[in-house]
Amino acid sequence: MRQQSFMDQAFVAKAERLTPTLRERRAEPVRIIEAEAERTALHGWKVRETGKAEALRTRALSKGDSFVVDFGDHQVGYLTFKLRSEEARADAPVRLKLIFGEMPVEIGESFDTYDGWLDRSWLQDEIVNLDVVPGTYTLPRRYSFRYLKVEVLTPARKFKVAFDELFVTSVSSADLAAVPALPDSVPEDLRELDRISVRTLQDCMQTVFEDGPKRDRRLWIGDLRLQALVNYETFRNMDLVKRCLYLFAGLRLPGGQVSACVYEKPEPSADDIYLYDYSLFFIAALHDYYEASGDRATLEELWPIALEQVHLSLERLDERGLVKDDPSWYCFTDWHDDLNKQASAQAVLIYGMKRAVAIADWLGGASGDRAGRETASAQERKEAQAQAEAEAEAEAYRKQADALRKQIDRVSAAALEHLRDPETGFFASGAGRQVSWASQVWMVLADVLPREENAALLDRLFADNPEVRPMTPYMFHHLVEALLAAGRREKALEQMRAYWGEMARDGADTFWEVYNPSDKNNSPYGSNLINSYCHAWSCTPAYLIRKHFR
Amino acid sequence: MRQQSFMDQAFVAKAERLTPTLRERRAEPVRIIEAEAERTALHGWKVRETGKAEALRTRALSKGDSFVVDFGDHQVGYLTFKLRSEEARADAPVRLKLIFGEMPVEIGESFDTYDGWLDRSWLQDEIVNLDVVPGTYTLPRRYSFRYLKVEVLTPARKFKVAFDELFVTSVSSADLAAVPALPDSVPEDLRELDRISVRTLQDCMQTVFEDGPKRDRRLWIGDLRLQALVNYETFRNMDLVKRCLYLFAGLRLPGGQVSACVYEKPEPSADDIYLYDYSLFFIAALHDYYEASGDRATLEELWPIALEQVHLSLERLDERGLVKDDPSWYCFTDWHDDLNKQASAQAVLIYGMKRAVAIADWLGGASGDRAGRETASAQERKEAQAQAEAEAEAEAYRKQADALRKQIDRVSAAALEHLRDPETGFFASGAGRQVSWASQVWMVLADVLPREENAALLDRLFADNPEVRPMTPYMFHHLVEALLAAGRREKALEQMRAYWGEMARDGADTFWEVYNPSDKNNSPYGSNLINSYCHAWSCTPAYLIRKHFR
Repeated sequence: MRQQSFMDQAFVAKAERLTPTLRERRAEPVRIIEAEAERTALHGWKVRETGKAEALRTRALSKGDSFVVDFGDHQVGYLTFKLRSEEARADAPVRLKLIFGEMPVEIGESFDTYDGWLDRSWLQDEIVNLDVVPGTYTLPRRYSFRYLKVEVLTPARKFKVAFDELFVTSVSSADLAAVPALPDSVPEDLRELDRISVRTLQDCMQTVFEDGPKRDRRLWIGDLRLQALVNYETFRNMDLVKRCLYLFAGLRLPGGQVSACVYEKPEPSADDIYLYDYSLFFIAALHDYYEASGDRATLEELWPIALEQVHLSLERLDERGLVKDDPSWYCFTDWHDDLNKQASAQAVLIYGMKRAVAIADWLGGASGDRAGRETASAQERKEAQAQAEAEAEAEAYRKQADALRKQIDRVSAAALEHLRDPETGFFASGAGRQVSWASQVWMVLADVLPREENAALLDRLFADNPEVRPMTPYMFHHLVEALLAAGRREKALEQMRAYWGEMARDGADTFWEVYNPSDKNNSPYGSNLINSYCHAWSCTPAYLIRKHFR
Repeated sequence: MRQQSFMDQAFVAKAERLTPTLRERRAEPVRIIEAEAERTALHGWKVRETGKAEALRTRALSKGDSFVVDFGDHQVGYLTFKLRSEEARADAPVRLKLIFGEMPVEIGESFDTYDGWLDRSWLQDEIVNLDVVPGTYTLPRRYSFRYLKVEVLTPARKFKVAFDELFVTSVSSADLAAVPALPDSVPEDLRELDRISVRTLQDCMQTVFEDGPKRDRRLWIGDLRLQALVNYETFRNMDLVKRCLYLFAGLRLPGGQVSACVYEKPEPSADDIYLYDYSLFFIAALHDYYEASGDRATLEELWPIALEQVHLSLERLDERGLVKDDPSWYCFTDWHDDLNKQASAQAVLIYGMKRAVAIADWLGGASGDRAGRETASAQERKEAQAQAEAEAEAEAYRKQADALRKQIDRVSAAALEHLRDPETGFFASGAGRQVSWASQVWMVLADVLPREENAALLDRLFADNPEVRPMTPYMFHHLVEALLAAGRREKALEQMRAYWGEMARDGADTFWEVYNPSDKNNSPYGSNLINSYCHAWSCTPAYLIRKHFR
């Protein structure tokens, strides 16, 4: 245990050395707007332009005055403004209320009405008291927003105030210049989805891959896996993925499980949340990282952690080889109150093990080029010994791969025997034998059926349209991936256009955490105010387009 | 004009070089209290101890919880606290409301009810959002307070918060160790008034002599003059007075008048307020500074500014030699809506000119020691020339003194002839011939009558008790000074005990900006919340006791 703990610290130290310096961009307001209530608009609010941004400079404001500026696109960064007094010298502090919104609803509705299920402190507003005017102020906190409402609480008496400057210093660890241009063949609507996706990822890429820069501002492995895929096709920031992998590897739970999420501050530490699928995604994230980077040293160093996730996950199987179900929140899969997770957990286990096999194969096959040399001198004997050791290591990897293959067979057979309904061909989950979209999608991704059967399963899924549908962009991504894996390219494109395309038509500057085209005001937290409107797990169209539709 | 402007910059630069480094002290809460409404208490609020300060460390707080800590004495400084989470890791920002109060009323009453005549931004409260918990936070603004109320706005859900540490770093440019001990002969109640006065001055002594560290936090010359007097008897920080004199000298109004108040930030600048009496107090402040410090270089350099104030003030006289009255706020004297200022302005002019004469006499008499030497060598001839120049300079000072004496005679005669009522002997002010306490007090301080008549005037004042009475500690100070000048030492002591003594009995930790023993809830600003309860012009008992009652 002591040695393990030492290893952890070394991993975290390695992660900390990879902390990126953020790139800064200055963004100015592009116009002055108002949020107007409109029943038919998304969340009941739309924006209306009421003036040019330049007009701000000459507007003298006092108690009760307010304005809303639009920065033209989603921003993650620090607000700076320069205040002067008008009509008389400022002889008292200036008190302002600042409200930052990613969406018009955040500007339109009062945060005082918020009654959702997460802490109100995620809503981005401040009351600031400014002692020195004229003065230039930069607020210490980072905000995620496109719109900023300023309410003047004072001055009320002798003087007024005006804003000489007002801008955001936006930050990201992503380098926009590194993103390859899309070929001309990509149609306009997909280019737009790609652009929004890239912006989403850019704004989530800070000193880790955050899930959402407004909320929760931390590293979840479910989000990381998808962000990394998009990153490989766009910014190609390998070090940031590496940093995140080492954070997860260094900050496991007491039982050795990779935790679902980690915090960077005040010092790196794991949350206590363990999710069955998320811990297995460590394997997938490592697999994908090596495939994109070829960084074998990292692969070798983190492989034991990945393999440990398999072993820990296998412990949850019952005597039939099925993931034991229970009513707790043991597996994520999707934000859906009614979704049973057993089948998808089973599938993710297979999906993870298949990537583990790939890693073991890579590691086990690498020493082959050293074979067949003659040995003579001391130097050569030394080389021969090294070669023998490498060969032994490779042999160990191959044995791991073989053991994994046996487990894959066993777990896949259990899924086919106990979860698949022989009548309908659908995979059923839990004691209630629930047939959900998620279970079918994940079984396709786990590739337990022949390819043609996968395609037929998905066709039947669309035809039957079971009630427990995908809820989040995260689940929609996996649906699209499953369609692509099964060769249903057109259906995949149609889904992408229907989902992310509709989000874009609804005004997304960056893709959202939650979106249900048939219930657009849905929030898993009881309020549209607290949803994250720039959310990493929603940024995959850029990956899908660049990998499959170019 | 160009040259004048250059001079100004040199004065300001000299002032800036004298900016003190503030001394820091750490102060901890001494107990947990509650503010309780009680009709008979001052402002309707009293405090009740509800726990020991140590108890805070173990109290886990969430939405809706609040506490009030008492730091035991008035503090001016910066708040630091260390927050930890309880029950679970903090997974959302923590949102707190902090309310700082010098007095129980500020803790008891909601600032939302404030409807006074100064900007609400002077009321000291903040809403802070803290992204990282556990964490140690120091708020960037300085507060003036004894009580701190903390309201927890979030967390509301998964975790709670507790305060591991909570303290103030109090700041002042005053060195408490420099204050001479009072002799044993000084009675206990005066020692207490002295202690409170010293604390008041200490908390107002920052990078200038502030009028009030809660409100207005700037340098007024009316306050400076009194603070300097107390300072000479206590902290003896000569450089801070010098800095303030150079600020006023360097930042005059376009016509050359010393402005009533100056700001330090963002860079030193004058307010546009000109007050007849305040500009004349520049002379008195310079006079007192030289008397305390013997700093002749400063006296010589600032004398032209002082003399200019006389000349500018004389311009307001009518053909009879009386200060022209008008309904504007041209002279301060006291916060009293009904007070006519003509007589007091006339008296302050005489008071100022008498101190100008003293300065001119000091400057004119200083070269006498060089006279009577023989001249022979080149060196000696050079010395002789310097001596001749010095003699010419001294002669110029003496001429200035003579001219001032003539003006004093003229203006005093005008006061006696036109303002003094031959029947009652009272000085009457303005077209309405108002007989106020302030007019008599200032005429005594201007010393226009023989000493016995001054005493008789004040005796009659107490006997007749005209309706327009002193309102502020500032005016009470001048009443006590007048009694002392007229030899009414016992009456002076009685007044001091009745006024500041009553304030002390009412719970003053530091002396207050406004206090009317017969109307204790009076505020010139329409609300007790916005009064300053540590106010420089109220700190003179330490001067009066140390100069006259030891």
